[in-house]
Amino acid sequence: MKFTVSEIAQMLNGTVVGNDQITISSAAKIEEGLPGCISFLANSKYEHYIYSTQSSAVIVNKDFTPKKDIAATLIYVENAYTAFTILLEEYQKRLAGIKSGVEQPSFIGENSQTGDNCYRGAFSYIGKNCVIGKEVKIYPQAWLGDGVEVGDYSVIHPGVKIYDNTVIGKNVTIFANTVIGSDGFGFAPQADGSYKTIPQLGNVVIEDNVSIGSNTTIDCATMGSTIIRQGAKIDNLVQIAHNVEIGKNTVIAAQSGVSGSTTVGDQCVIAGQVGLVGHITVANNTKIGAQSGLGKSIKKEGLSLSGSPARDLNEHLRSMALVRRLPELEERLKDLERKQETSDFQ
Amino acid sequence: MKFTVSEIAQMLNGTVVGNDQITISSAAKIEEGLPGCISFLANSKYEHYIYSTQSSAVIVNKDFTPKKDIAATLIYVENAYTAFTILLEEYQKRLAGIKSGVEQPSFIGENSQTGDNCYRGAFSYIGKNCVIGKEVKIYPQAWLGDGVEVGDYSVIHPGVKIYDNTVIGKNVTIFANTVIGSDGFGFAPQADGSYKTIPQLGNVVIEDNVSIGSNTTIDCATMGSTIIRQGAKIDNLVQIAHNVEIGKNTVIAAQSGVSGSTTVGDQCVIAGQVGLVGHITVANNTKIGAQSGLGKSIKKEGLSLSGSPARDLNEHLRSMALVRRLPELEERLKDLERKQETSDFQ
Amino acid sequence: MKFTVSEIAQMLNGTVVGNDQITISSAAKIEEGLPGCISFLANSKYEHYIYSTQSSAVIVNKDFTPKKDIAATLIYVENAYTAFTILLEEYQKRLAGIKSGVEQPSFIGENSQTGDNCYRGAFSYIGKNCVIGKEVKIYPQAWLGDGVEVGDYSVIHPGVKIYDNTVIGKNVTIFANTVIGSDGFGFAPQADGSYKTIPQLGNVVIEDNVSIGSNTTIDCATMGSTIIRQGAKIDNLVQIAHNVEIGKNTVIAAQSGVSGSTTVGDQCVIAGQVGLVGHITVANNTKIGAQSGLGKSIKKEGLSLSGSPARDLNEHLRSMALVRRLPELEERLKDLERKQETSDFQ
Repeated sequence: MKFTVSEIAQMLNGTVVGNDQITISSAAKIEEGLPGCISFLANSKYEHYIYSTQSSAVIVNKDFTPKKDIAATLIYVENAYTAFTILLEEYQKRLAGIKSGVEQPSFIGENSQTGDNCYRGAFSYIGKNCVIGKEVKIYPQAWLGDGVEVGDYSVIHPGVKIYDNTVIGKNVTIFANTVIGSDGFGFAPQADGSYKTIPQLGNVVIEDNVSIGSNTTIDCATMGSTIIRQGAKIDNLVQIAHNVEIGKNTVIAAQSGVSGSTTVGDQCVIAGQVGLVGHITVANNTKIGAQSGLGKSIKKEGLSLSGSPARDLNEHLRSMALVRRLPELEERLKDLERKQETSDFQ
Repeated sequence: MKFTVSEIAQMLNGTVVGNDQITISSAAKIEEGLPGCISFLANSKYEHYIYSTQSSAVIVNKDFTPKKDIAATLIYVENAYTAFTILLEEYQKRLAGIKSGVEQPSFIGENSQTGDNCYRGAFSYIGKNCVIGKEVKIYPQAWLGDGVEVGDYSVIHPGVKIYDNTVIGKNVTIFANTVIGSDGFGFAPQADGSYKTIPQLGNVVIEDNVSIGSNTTIDCATMGSTIIRQGAKIDNLVQIAHNVEIGKNTVIAAQSGVSGSTTVGDQCVIAGQVGLVGHITVANNTKIGAQSGLGKSIKKEGLSLSGSPARDLNEHLRSMALVRRLPELEERLKDLERKQETSDFQ
Repeated sequence: MKFTVSEIAQMLNGTVVGNDQITISSAAKIEEGLPGCISFLANSKYEHYIYSTQSSAVIVNKDFTPKKDIAATLIYVENAYTAFTILLEEYQKRLAGIKSGVEQPSFIGENSQTGDNCYRGAFSYIGKNCVIGKEVKIYPQAWLGDGVEVGDYSVIHPGVKIYDNTVIGKNVTIFANTVIGSDGFGFAPQADGSYKTIPQLGNVVIEDNVSIGSNTTIDCATMGSTIIRQGAKIDNLVQIAHNVEIGKNTVIAAQSGVSGSTTVGDQCVIAGQVGLVGHITVANNTKIGAQSGLGKSIKKEGLSLSGSPARDLNEHLRSMALVRRLPELEERLKDLERKQETSDFQ
């Protein structure tokens, strides 16, 4: 997608100084700009870059006064950072808007309906009795089982698999090859040492404005629902087990895992490669550091935790510092023992 | 799928008290029941829920005597818990049985054969010279390379990829987007610092009754076979490297990884996010706690291990408790040093 | 694929002793050989196996003199190990060469071009404005968005998803269900506690001779490119976040993750389940042990690191040994305290 500087200035309600017919095809940081890129300058700390940037255009605050010649065309706006964000969003919106209609071959089962202006990519599969809202995009090779609901404006990326009876809200984005609603890991041990599969009859409910990364897995509930509350953001390669509930606006970074029947509160931040055991409850606003392992419920809100087993971040750091110094501590212990021995002999 | 209470009672050899024409469409815990659900009451600890449950029907033990009025229809059986399990299994069996026939477009290569009553979903791909048993289900967008064998009653979920010459037994379930048989990670370092790919010519053998979760990866052997023994249960996002052998009925939870050429015994339980190094042997009945890292062979059967590096669970817990108390230990050390110093001066 | 011993001997410039018309269909270690297999004997330590191997043929060094009768046909060559490697490579090359042409149905968007002798599998999808080199293989159910470039001889395995504007070099292999170029995990916190998606407008660049395993995820850059330098080898289930750069010939084992904007140098070796925080730089030739967590930049080249937080391998091992001995250290501390107390009372 390409725009002229003039079109962009109009979009941002800005004033152009320089050639407004230059074509912009990408965005870049001011220090990494290339011809055809647009950048922004909001913080005077980076002002020196504007005199040498190769970007074709730079968005600047309306009070910006150049101290030297600038090759790039300038767009003066009220707030350069905000304007740049608006531009990127507008760009994404237009990009997303491009896809619509039905590519063939694609499959849709009996009694399934799609809303206005949907995109169904080639080789996508929608089972029976599905209800798909308006402006929804179902990319190629995605699979929706039977009885799946997808709310307006949601985007199901290529290769995503969504099992029967999953309920997905509005404005939800699920990235490529993620699996929603496959069986929870439940097996009953038998007398002969083998395991019997426990039927997993529940579903997954994903509320509005949730974003889920690539190659992530969210299991269906044994009974009832595994629930991802509105606004939650889940990264790539994350495991969410059966009957888990993830609170509103909670963020979970890549490769973390939440075990069965655990409830994570609202506004929590879970860093990468973290593990939570099953059947615990984590209070709102809890922060858990990377590679931590949480083994028990957290009742007090707003704590920062780290370590495996996870505990108060500062206590953990103190202990880790002492682990590093263990060789020194042992030397001091030996020293005392030697002196003790000497004094025993005196 | 819907049943009347009367149909369910017949299935369970039970006696109905109440309206036996009510329609049941789902199952729920007695405390979470909704109209249209069936629940069970086996443990008298939960009896109080039966007087307020919204479930339409409840399965109870034949000796159950209500102490108050109950709105739900009751089904009296010999053993309520067992009956409920039978019901869930019957439900799953019927659900599974629904899919059969070939959806179009789908692809099957020359000289491949499928047994009676198979399901081949739209956009599924079967290569050449494959042998697919009876009642096998190959869901949409699954891919089987050349020379793959799949035993009777196995289910290959949507998007699963199975490389050439993989051998899969009977009653095996592989959930969505899992990859079986891609190349092991083998590279020979060259003089110039680059790596040369070591050809991976082996295959993967998965025995009967194995279950494998979603987005898991099991690599083919360099030569010979990577083997998953019968009854093993593997969760989501697990990595099984080349030439690994996983023993009979061994359970591996999500996000764990087993490195190349390691052999895990029978009836082991490996919790989530565990790592095993390559070329080791783990004895039968070994239990490994979450986030552990096992760096050496375990010869004695039945041990419980934890930590990274993993060692005896109790010793690990003892050390971890002392790590937490390291600041206190250092204080005590300082205290002794101070006293020592004082006594030196006396 | 099958060869006679005679054909193999010709390929390897070897001399046959025994039946040269036997058919070989697979390769095996000499101690695991089966009829129809070929093995090699390079190290005299394994010589005893050659007298009992079931392999139909064995490649041996030209100076090998049997001490007993050998059932297998022998192929004498200059260097048995090198010859065996050549054979395996030749085998793989021929296997790879088998696939070409376009299977139907497959999808290719307007203005996209493919070079000579490509393979496009059934249900594969190529978007608009893509440039695909010669001898490229795009397996079934792979998806390429718009404007994707793939260099000569690269192989895109089944189910791989490659987002818009990704640039892939020559001789690159990407295994099944891996996702390249989905959105980086970037969200700006809002006053009401919700998060706003930060548009991810960059791409992914993968240089020549890179190999990427199955179910791995490599995110696109926010602006600019996420870069995988030539010859890098990345295993299964690895997470590479936005704006990361992985150096030349660097190896990353399964289930490791690199956070946003981190730069890893050339010739590094990162073991399994390792995590790197964001915005750090790792020097060339750094080695990081399994399950380590690296929290800061490494400026000196050639270090071996381990632990979480990661530090010098030997120091880490020393500390870990003392962690194991903490109960003993506490006993010694108590002992000193007791003696101190006694002396206080004297």
